[in-house]
Amino acid sequence: MTYPAPGRWESWLATQADARAAAGLTRTLRPRAADESVIDLAGNDYLGLARHPEVRAAAAEAAHEWGGGAGASRLVSGTLLLHSRLEQRLTTVMGQPAALVFSTGYHANLAVVGALADRDTEIISDAHVHASLIDAVRLARARVTVVPHNDVTAVRTALAAAGGRRTLVLAESVYSVLGDEAPLAALAAACQEYDAWLVVDEAHGLGVHGPGLVAERGLAGAPHVVVTATLSKALGSQGGAVLGPHALVHHLVNTARPFIFDTGLAPASAAAALAALEVLDRSPELPMVVRRRVDGLAGLLGVAPPAGAVLSVPMRSPQAALAAAAAALDAGVRVGCFRPPSVPDGVSRLRVTASAGVRDDDWAHATEVLLRVTKEYA
Amino acid sequence: MTYPAPGRWESWLATQADARAAAGLTRTLRPRAADESVIDLAGNDYLGLARHPEVRAAAAEAAHEWGGGAGASRLVSGTLLLHSRLEQRLTTVMGQPAALVFSTGYHANLAVVGALADRDTEIISDAHVHASLIDAVRLARARVTVVPHNDVTAVRTALAAAGGRRTLVLAESVYSVLGDEAPLAALAAACQEYDAWLVVDEAHGLGVHGPGLVAERGLAGAPHVVVTATLSKALGSQGGAVLGPHALVHHLVNTARPFIFDTGLAPASAAAALAALEVLDRSPELPMVVRRRVDGLAGLLGVAPPAGAVLSVPMRSPQAALAAAAAALDAGVRVGCFRPPSVPDGVSRLRVTASAGVRDDDWAHATEVLLRVTKEYA
Ligand SMILES: Cc1ncc(COP(=O)(O)O)c(C=O)c1O
Ligand SMILES: Cc1ncc(COP(=O)(O)O)c(C=O)c1O
Repeated sequence: MTYPAPGRWESWLATQADARAAAGLTRTLRPRAADESVIDLAGNDYLGLARHPEVRAAAAEAAHEWGGGAGASRLVSGTLLLHSRLEQRLTTVMGQPAALVFSTGYHANLAVVGALADRDTEIISDAHVHASLIDAVRLARARVTVVPHNDVTAVRTALAAAGGRRTLVLAESVYSVLGDEAPLAALAAACQEYDAWLVVDEAHGLGVHGPGLVAERGLAGAPHVVVTATLSKALGSQGGAVLGPHALVHHLVNTARPFIFDTGLAPASAAAALAALEVLDRSPELPMVVRRRVDGLAGLLGVAPPAGAVLSVPMRSPQAALAAAAAALDAGVRVGCFRPPSVPDGVSRLRVTASAGVRDDDWAHATEVLLRVTKEYA
Repeated sequence: MTYPAPGRWESWLATQADARAAAGLTRTLRPRAADESVIDLAGNDYLGLARHPEVRAAAAEAAHEWGGGAGASRLVSGTLLLHSRLEQRLTTVMGQPAALVFSTGYHANLAVVGALADRDTEIISDAHVHASLIDAVRLARARVTVVPHNDVTAVRTALAAAGGRRTLVLAESVYSVLGDEAPLAALAAACQEYDAWLVVDEAHGLGVHGPGLVAERGLAGAPHVVVTATLSKALGSQGGAVLGPHALVHHLVNTARPFIFDTGLAPASAAAALAALEVLDRSPELPMVVRRRVDGLAGLLGVAPPAGAVLSVPMRSPQAALAAAAAALDAGVRVGCFRPPSVPDGVSRLRVTASAGVRDDDWAHATEVLLRVTKEYA
C-alpha cells in the first residue's frame, strides 16, 4: 500500500515549528568567536578555568601526547592513564572513596540511576532536578514519586511509603535554575534512617563550593550519599563523574549502558579537567571571588543571594527577559535567559553568572549595565 | 520508622557482583599508557586519524585558542564558530542538507529519536541496533516493533501495520557486532513507499566507507533518510552528529533534551573531528587500506569479510575468547572480545579492527599472531 502524499514527517515538523513561532519560543544558535570582546556572564565557567593558561596548556599537551580521542569504549582500550589520574584526583578533591569518569555529565546521571534502579526500585525525586536525571528515571522505568522542591517532610513521607524497596532520593546540591541549595544534611539523615541512597548532583556545587557542597557539609564518603558531577562547568572542560563507594563504581563499570557503550572521554578534556582540579586545589580565593560577586550583585538587584554562582532575576514575561538580555548585549554584556520550558515554575528570568573569570573592571561595568536593564524591563 | 540493618544497597551490589563473578563475566578497566608498544586492533580508530599529526595539532591549537570547554550549553553561549564549521564540513562530506553536533554519538541517537517520537509514533527497529538507539526508544516511550536482523520483509509488514502513524525505521549502516551491512536501498525504498523515515546510524560506516554508506549508496539527502554519526570512531575524536533536512535540525535545536540540557562539545574535540574530515577528504587511500586488510585477514581466518573495519571471529566460549585475546596480547597484539551481554546472539567473538593506522610490518606481525591464536582456541 502506498500513501498518497509524501512528507508526513515534514508536515509534522512544520506544524511544530509554527506552534513554537506563534508562542514566541523559537530558539536559534548564535555561534561565538574565540576573540569576542563581550563580557560573558551567560555560561557556566564559574571560576574562569576554561580559559586558564594551565588548563589550556594541559589540554593541548594531552592532544599532542594521546591524540584526538580515546579511540574505544572504556572497557575495550579506551581507558587512558589520564582517566585513572583524573578519577584519582576527583576522589581526593571531593573526599570520596572512588570515582568513574563519563563523557558528559548527562551520561553520568543516566548511568547511575539506570544501573541502580529497575522496576523494583522506588525513586523519590525533587521536583526541580535536571533534565538528565528526569531522563534517567524515565529510562530506568522505576517507580517515581516527585516531591515538592526542597520538601524534606515530603521526602520522609515517600521514604516511609517505600517500605522495604531499594530507594534512591534524587537532588542537586545547588539547583540550576533557582540557584538555591538542597537541605543536604536533612536529606542525608532521612536516607540513613530509611536505608535509602541519596544521589546528589554537584553540577553547580563543585568548584563554586570548592570540593562541592556535599564535602562542605561534611557528607563526603557518608555511606548513604553518592554524588554525580560535571567536568563542564566550574572545571571548564567536558565530561562527568559518579563518585561513591568502590562497589558502586565496580557496578557501573559492569552494567551502566551509557558507560559501556560509549567512547571514553577525549584526552584533551580529561587533561583539562585534571588541570582545573589542580588550579582549584591551590586557589581557595576563586570560590571566594564568586561568593563576593554573587552577594554584591544580588544586593544591588534586590534578589536573594543564591547558593551557587548564578543569579536568577525574575522578569515579567519571556519577552521582557529577551529584551533585557538584548539590551545588555548591546552594552557588551552577555547574560542568559530562562524561559519555558526550561523553568520549573513558568517564570521567565535573566540568568547572570558571577564568574570569577571576569576582570574586576569588566565586572564593575557589567554590574552597572545589569542594574540599568533590569530596572528598564523588570 | 528506622530500618534495623543498614546497607540494603550495599548488599544488593554485593549480590550482583557475586552473580557476575560466578558467571565469569566480571569486567575491569585496564588503563593504557600513551607510549605503549602494543599493536592496538581493539579500538575504533579505523583510519588511524586519532593520532594523525594534523588531528593532534588541530586539537591542541583549539585548546589554546578556545580553552578547555565550550563553557555553556549550545543554546546559551556554548555554540562556537568551531561547531558551525564542523557542522558545515559534515554536511559537505556526507552530502546532507544540514547537521547538528552533539557531545557524544550516544547523545545524537537519544536526541533524534527522542525529539521525533512520542506515544503516537511507531518505531520499527532492527534487532541488532546499538544500545544508544535502544535507550532512545525506551526514553521516547513510543510503540516499538523489533524486527529480525536485516529482514526487509518484516520491516514492510510492520510499516503496513503502522497505518497512518508517523513511523521511524532504525538501522545501522554497518552493524557494530557482526560487522554486516544494512540493506539500505531496500529499507529506504520501503520507507519512501510508506512515508516513514529511515534513521541510519553511520557510527561504523563513516570514514571506513569515505563519506559513509548512505552516501555511497546514493541515498544522501534522500527525503526519507536521516543519518546519525559519531565523531569518536573513524574521525578519531569525541562527539556525534545528526544529519538531515534543515527542518529536522531546527526541531532538534528547539526540542532535543540531550542537546538543550548539555554542555557543547569541547573545542579540542570539535577541532580534531574537523581536521580528521579534512584528512579523510584528501586521502581516499585510507578506506582502501582498511578494505584490503579486512578482506585479507578474513580470508586467512576463514570468516566472511565484514562491511566495516571490524572482523568478528566466533569463538567456542567466553573463556576461549578471553584466552585467545590474552595470548595475542602476550604476543604484542591487542584485540577485543565480544561476550554476553554485548552480543545480540549470545556467541562470544574476538573483535579485530583492521585499522589503517597500523604500520605495514605491524599489520603483518598481527596477522601471524591472530592466525596462531585463533587456531589454538577456536
Ligand atoms: C544539574 C545538571 N546536571 C547535569 C548536567 C549535564 O552536564 P553536562 O553538560 O556535562 O552533560 C547539567 C548541565 O548541563 C546540569 O545543570
Ligand atoms: C553503532 C553505534 N552508535 C553509537 C555509538 C555511540 O557513539 P559514542 O561513543 O560517540 O557515544 C556507538 C559506540 O560507541 C556505536 O557503536
